Amino acid sequence: MIRPGSTFGILGGGQLGRMIAMAAAELGLRVHVYAPDPDSPAFEVAAAHTVASYEDETALTDFAQAVDVVTYEFENVPGATAAILSDHTRLAPNARALSITQDRFAEKTFVADLGIPVAPFAAVSTPPEYTEAVAAIGLPAVLKTRRFGYDGKGQAMIERWDSGLAAWNDFGQAASILEGFVAFEREVSVVAARTRDGNFAAYDLCANEHRSHILDTTRVPAGVAPQTEREAVTIARRIADALDYVGVLAVEMFLVREGDRESLVVNEIAPRVHNSGHWTLGGAQTSQFEQHVRAVCGWPLGSTRRLGRVQMQNLIGSDADRWEALLAEPGARLHLYGKTQARPGRKMGHVTRVFPEGG
Amino acid sequence: MIRPGSTFGILGGGQLGRMIAMAAAELGLRVHVYAPDPDSPAFEVAAAHTVASYEDETALTDFAQAVDVVTYEFENVPGATAAILSDHTRLAPNARALSITQDRFAEKTFVADLGIPVAPFAAVSTPPEYTEAVAAIGLPAVLKTRRFGYDGKGQAMIERWDSGLAAWNDFGQAASILEGFVAFEREVSVVAARTRDGNFAAYDLCANEHRSHILDTTRVPAGVAPQTEREAVTIARRIADALDYVGVLAVEMFLVREGDRESLVVNEIAPRVHNSGHWTLGGAQTSQFEQHVRAVCGWPLGSTRRLGRVQMQNLIGSDADRWEALLAEPGARLHLYGKTQARPGRKMGHVTRVFPEGG
Repeated sequence: MIRPGSTFGILGGGQLGRMIAMAAAELGLRVHVYAPDPDSPAFEVAAAHTVASYEDETALTDFAQAVDVVTYEFENVPGATAAILSDHTRLAPNARALSITQDRFAEKTFVADLGIPVAPFAAVSTPPEYTEAVAAIGLPAVLKTRRFGYDGKGQAMIERWDSGLAAWNDFGQAASILEGFVAFEREVSVVAARTRDGNFAAYDLCANEHRSHILDTTRVPAGVAPQTEREAVTIARRIADALDYVGVLAVEMFLVREGDRESLVVNEIAPRVHNSGHWTLGGAQTSQFEQHVRAVCGWPLGSTRRLGRVQMQNLIGSDADRWEALLAEPGARLHLYGKTQARPGRKMGHVTRVFPEGG
Repeated sequence: MIRPGSTFGILGGGQLGRMIAMAAAELGLRVHVYAPDPDSPAFEVAAAHTVASYEDETALTDFAQAVDVVTYEFENVPGATAAILSDHTRLAPNARALSITQDRFAEKTFVADLGIPVAPFAAVSTPPEYTEAVAAIGLPAVLKTRRFGYDGKGQAMIERWDSGLAAWNDFGQAASILEGFVAFEREVSVVAARTRDGNFAAYDLCANEHRSHILDTTRVPAGVAPQTEREAVTIARRIADALDYVGVLAVEMFLVREGDRESLVVNEIAPRVHNSGHWTLGGAQTSQFEQHVRAVCGWPLGSTRRLGRVQMQNLIGSDADRWEALLAEPGARLHLYGKTQARPGRKMGHVTRVFPEGG
């Protein structure tokens, strides 16, 4: 059993790793972060860190032997890396969750096989496959690389047949997937945690708005029918159970409206804490970061009770220049990630506002 | 001006330094902790640390030159140390606040000179001074060393004349102070912050219960008359103004009741974040740790709004063994300080419970 005082390993040194590290330290754990970039924000709040590539077998083995448990902040952990870590320590979430969610085709297939609605999809690795996919799915559709896409990168909306091939060439002819376009009303997500024993706790459903393909604002409650929210949580739980998942995961879904009828289509699974769960830090009894630490350590899950009506806004690039005004705003809670360079599109921090319920 | 990304120095590596460090990191600051003990809990959440004694002039100078501002977590910072730091960087709270509050006689004199009620007191450095002090103050009284006392250490209740001399010998004949015994109903404290510009923000008054001279439980609200609470805040503000104080301070007071009449007697000033302010972490809009960072950096103070009726309980020594039960308690928020050895009387963590107001 992992006890306070144990060493908690985190693979990845960005803001998610940083916030997990702080939550772990609050519970008396010693944190060791592994990341290739010597300027990793998570290093600054960790007791120990290793600067090495995710392919460095010796460094990974040393790291795994130095920690009591290891988790990760990103889904693109190479399979070989996960295997090395699993050989020497406890890895949570498990390697299967990684291998499924890092490939859009495997992920969509996995979700569809559970009988959960997804957009129609087909693999595209060659021009003939593209032609077949368009014939099956129709246009408009969205072409996405199977791997390494995030924040809209490796994605193109395809309205005309030939622009799809052009996009595929832009992707370096990488293995891709064509997905039917879903005319959704809004995007929602379930952030939830599952333990080794199958305990499960979801936060309230949140509604997400994007700007230039990057999450801009999350609002909770999401403003959907209670039945829709229950359905969303059921979907997340079935996915977590089927993955034998341990830790926090996020399931992004499209909300489709036909008159009064709301339905959900799963878009993506993130096997990690998620930007759409940042509102829980200050907006819920237990933050998603603490909840992840609890689940990974095999500890009881915390209460997911919401503390009010919550709005979370990302600070992207120069948005963070407003830090002083945000500090002066009563009720705003500012989080900055300690990144030195504010490049356009870079997530520099976020701000959370909690309002009285119904207010 | 201090900006996010600046380096925030903390002198002292215990749990107070650790919680200040985490609050600073949440606001994008890089933290550098200076402490003599290589096992300091605050090192584990800081970007950089220096292990050196508080008398090491070279190490102090290097530290001061490496940071943009420096604060401390304890009032017994030697005057020479404060002077070296002040020579090379901005020190907050200032050296005068330190020199006054680290000497009980200077502190009581300072408060009394402001016309604020304190127990009758007299300096005791020789047996004849002791005799004079008893003649002036009467018995019972409390003999305390002027310096380095905390959690009841260096304190003795004196009921009979000769036991006072025995206690003074036990203190190694250290310079002491005899204070009249105050028959108080309860101990309360004001935790508040002041900025360089004279802005001031106090948290709600809290009531403190001790066990074996160590803080056991803090409750907010304190359950005193509104007028008493206003008076307590006014006292704290006058003290902060008179010290030209920058940062969070705590003023401990005795609440004395005569029938319906409540009055306040100042017992002690702590020029730092304080155990009786731990409830603000999760129990108020802005924690005392974040508030201290804001004040020290010259940033706007945050809202001190309380989020409910709050109870904070210290986990002393083996109390922390209950960590798993506390994690399983909905509504309890656990904080552990990462200390490896649970010695009796050692503060290992605390737990905060927030209840609906009036509930």
